[in-house]
Amino acid sequence: MEIASSLAAAARGFHARGWLMGTSGNLSAVVQREPLQLAMSPSGVDKGELKPEQLLSIDENARVVNGRPGKPSDETLLHLRLVRDRGAGAVLHTHSVWNTILSDFYAGTGGMAIEGYEMLKGLQGVPTHEHSEWLPIVENSQDMTALAETVAQTLNEHKGAHGFLVRRHGLYTWGETVAQAKRHIEIYEFLLETIGRTLHIRGVHAGV
Amino acid sequence: MEIASSLAAAARGFHARGWLMGTSGNLSAVVQREPLQLAMSPSGVDKGELKPEQLLSIDENARVVNGRPGKPSDETLLHLRLVRDRGAGAVLHTHSVWNTILSDFYAGTGGMAIEGYEMLKGLQGVPTHEHSEWLPIVENSQDMTALAETVAQTLNEHKGAHGFLVRRHGLYTWGETVAQAKRHIEIYEFLLETIGRTLHIRGVHAGV
Amino acid sequence: MEIASSLAAAARGFHARGWLMGTSGNLSAVVQREPLQLAMSPSGVDKGELKPEQLLSIDENARVVNGRPGKPSDETLLHLRLVRDRGAGAVLHTHSVWNTILSDFYAGTGGMAIEGYEMLKGLQGVPTHEHSEWLPIVENSQDMTALAETVAQTLNEHKGAHGFLVRRHGLYTWGETVAQAKRHIEIYEFLLETIGRTLHIRGVHAGV
Amino acid sequence: MEIASSLAAAARGFHARGWLMGTSGNLSAVVQREPLQLAMSPSGVDKGELKPEQLLSIDENARVVNGRPGKPSDETLLHLRLVRDRGAGAVLHTHSVWNTILSDFYAGTGGMAIEGYEMLKGLQGVPTHEHSEWLPIVENSQDMTALAETVAQTLNEHKGAHGFLVRRHGLYTWGETVAQAKRHIEIYEFLLETIGRTLHIRGVHAGV
Repeated sequence: MEIASSLAAAARGFHARGWLMGTSGNLSAVVQREPLQLAMSPSGVDKGELKPEQLLSIDENARVVNGRPGKPSDETLLHLRLVRDRGAGAVLHTHSVWNTILSDFYAGTGGMAIEGYEMLKGLQGVPTHEHSEWLPIVENSQDMTALAETVAQTLNEHKGAHGFLVRRHGLYTWGETVAQAKRHIEIYEFLLETIGRTLHIRGVHAGV
Repeated sequence: MEIASSLAAAARGFHARGWLMGTSGNLSAVVQREPLQLAMSPSGVDKGELKPEQLLSIDENARVVNGRPGKPSDETLLHLRLVRDRGAGAVLHTHSVWNTILSDFYAGTGGMAIEGYEMLKGLQGVPTHEHSEWLPIVENSQDMTALAETVAQTLNEHKGAHGFLVRRHGLYTWGETVAQAKRHIEIYEFLLETIGRTLHIRGVHAGV
Repeated sequence: MEIASSLAAAARGFHARGWLMGTSGNLSAVVQREPLQLAMSPSGVDKGELKPEQLLSIDENARVVNGRPGKPSDETLLHLRLVRDRGAGAVLHTHSVWNTILSDFYAGTGGMAIEGYEMLKGLQGVPTHEHSEWLPIVENSQDMTALAETVAQTLNEHKGAHGFLVRRHGLYTWGETVAQAKRHIEIYEFLLETIGRTLHIRGVHAGV
Repeated sequence: MEIASSLAAAARGFHARGWLMGTSGNLSAVVQREPLQLAMSPSGVDKGELKPEQLLSIDENARVVNGRPGKPSDETLLHLRLVRDRGAGAVLHTHSVWNTILSDFYAGTGGMAIEGYEMLKGLQGVPTHEHSEWLPIVENSQDMTALAETVAQTLNEHKGAHGFLVRRHGLYTWGETVAQAKRHIEIYEFLLETIGRTLHIRGVHAGV
């Protein structure tokens, strides 16, 4: 199954870059819309060794339907919400050092504006670097129903957003396909590292 | 075709180092001078998986002449200009974190002087570290005709330059061959990272 | 032997990330409890090329019992102590740049508190990011008997700890299995890099 | 030939870590002492693709004796001097970002003291972290005869040194074997990165 192969390859690649350390993060993609079937990385596995045949099939109620061992992540609710509310075909969630740091640094303003970078054009539908992308930040929570609700509300207020950060936790982004969602991860991780290192050089009061 | 293989290998290697994230950047090489035929990476593909057979053949008017799917980057005009004005046999363009940061940091002076590093000898024709290399910086633009014109004028004023930065966008360099252009990318990326980290340590008023 | 293969693979992976440079660090796993048999990396070998068949079998007195060439690390005593006192099934010890820096930076307080990060959930038994993990730091010593004793006492005072730092030396962590101990290494290395880079941005008086 | 294979493998590995970018650096090893025969990397090749059969055989006068294409680096004189004066069996020279930065930062004092790190034990003959290693720094020069003389005098004053830096240029170290010299490179690069990042955190007046 091509979707499973590309999800597993993305997981191994992100792990190599240090964005999915210690079994963190999760990845999903829509295999079928009606009824909904989602290929989803199982909880607690080393993403550096993820194989396509380890992926779970999840229905719209987050139940495993392909009888494989392993349980879906608690964050499956967030994936299902993004698939439904945003029409996402793939949802990717990474824990990188830079997304963790900046999710905390800009938490006080509820998000961060990313402006003026050519790389913004890698976000679907952004035609020019003269663009201001708002990356919302939500507080972390272990109550997944509450967190999914907060995310839904936040994204409802920022309909143009291509992703969001969970404070001291990580980045979520999505796309129509696995390839597009993977591109969005790379774009955000690049921009966050760029902004983080700029803060190093210019100091924390300089803005970006 | 050896040129296509070495371009694709360079792309995959640069992607691994994080210099071509999210389908950014582009690469080209002259296959034939009269009439001009340029092998060029297609727009919007993952450079980490670029294969030689995906490269487009472009003529002097930026038209695809080998009937392959995919469209050339909007920045093909810049490549053609460098091939013509500088006699480049290969043109490489990367988006790295460090080239993005420094293209902004030094934009106010229209460029940056890189001096006194042994690694400067990796730029074709530089015989000693006692050399001052001016790396021009031009403002970013989505108007490629205008940008190509600005670049041409800027390089006309700096005939010794081996590359240039586009502000908050990336690095362009070139060479007689793919190998030489790849060497120039590695030299510039090394020097920019060195200067960026030196700014971290010494502070922004220290100069380099 | 699966344990040997996974230990050797972990070693090669950590070396690739720069956490076991210059033959530093060591890795072990329990093969059998009664009588104790420990698979242990030999001293002075390049961890980037460690093969399963190079692992030594050690008994409870740190003697090599499988007749292979190579001598066990002087730090075998620490491994044996952790296997006995903590019931560890695998013990991993890395020398990373970040664990070296922070083991010194926080030495004055005898350890560092790591709080509020989602990644803490990667430490066995931690159910929420609302957790404060104390990572003890002990002074370095070449007297391994004394160091093992200091570590034992320190861990006795911090029964919840999942690892500890040796000042200007490195990180020790463990787990029930090689996979769990490897997960703990990745979690700690991630958190230490995150905290170290946060110090860069916020300055040394900001705390974490 | 095993020496050629291990030299070429070391070159490819160092290039992957960014320590031999843009054809920089060079590597050699003694194949035979009487008369002296040295396997040496040719000048101007991409170290990321170095193959054993590309290595040149050099005699004591730096002449190529195995009839292969390619010319030896101008720095061959330094290698020969280290083989003769220090009895080195292998000499390795890297250009890393951190060794470049610190070779400049500490140039004013003619070298830098590295003290108190466990990793110092990776330098041949150092039995404890309670050791102060002086890493001399010499000014860069394109006059290789003069530079070789300066290096010889400097090392004569620091008989315990395991390596030296050339200002804004790079690191030289050596060992009895390729494996030992490679270990020394990894140890120095680790320590220099650790010290460089510590300067970031503590500020330039804090010392190390």
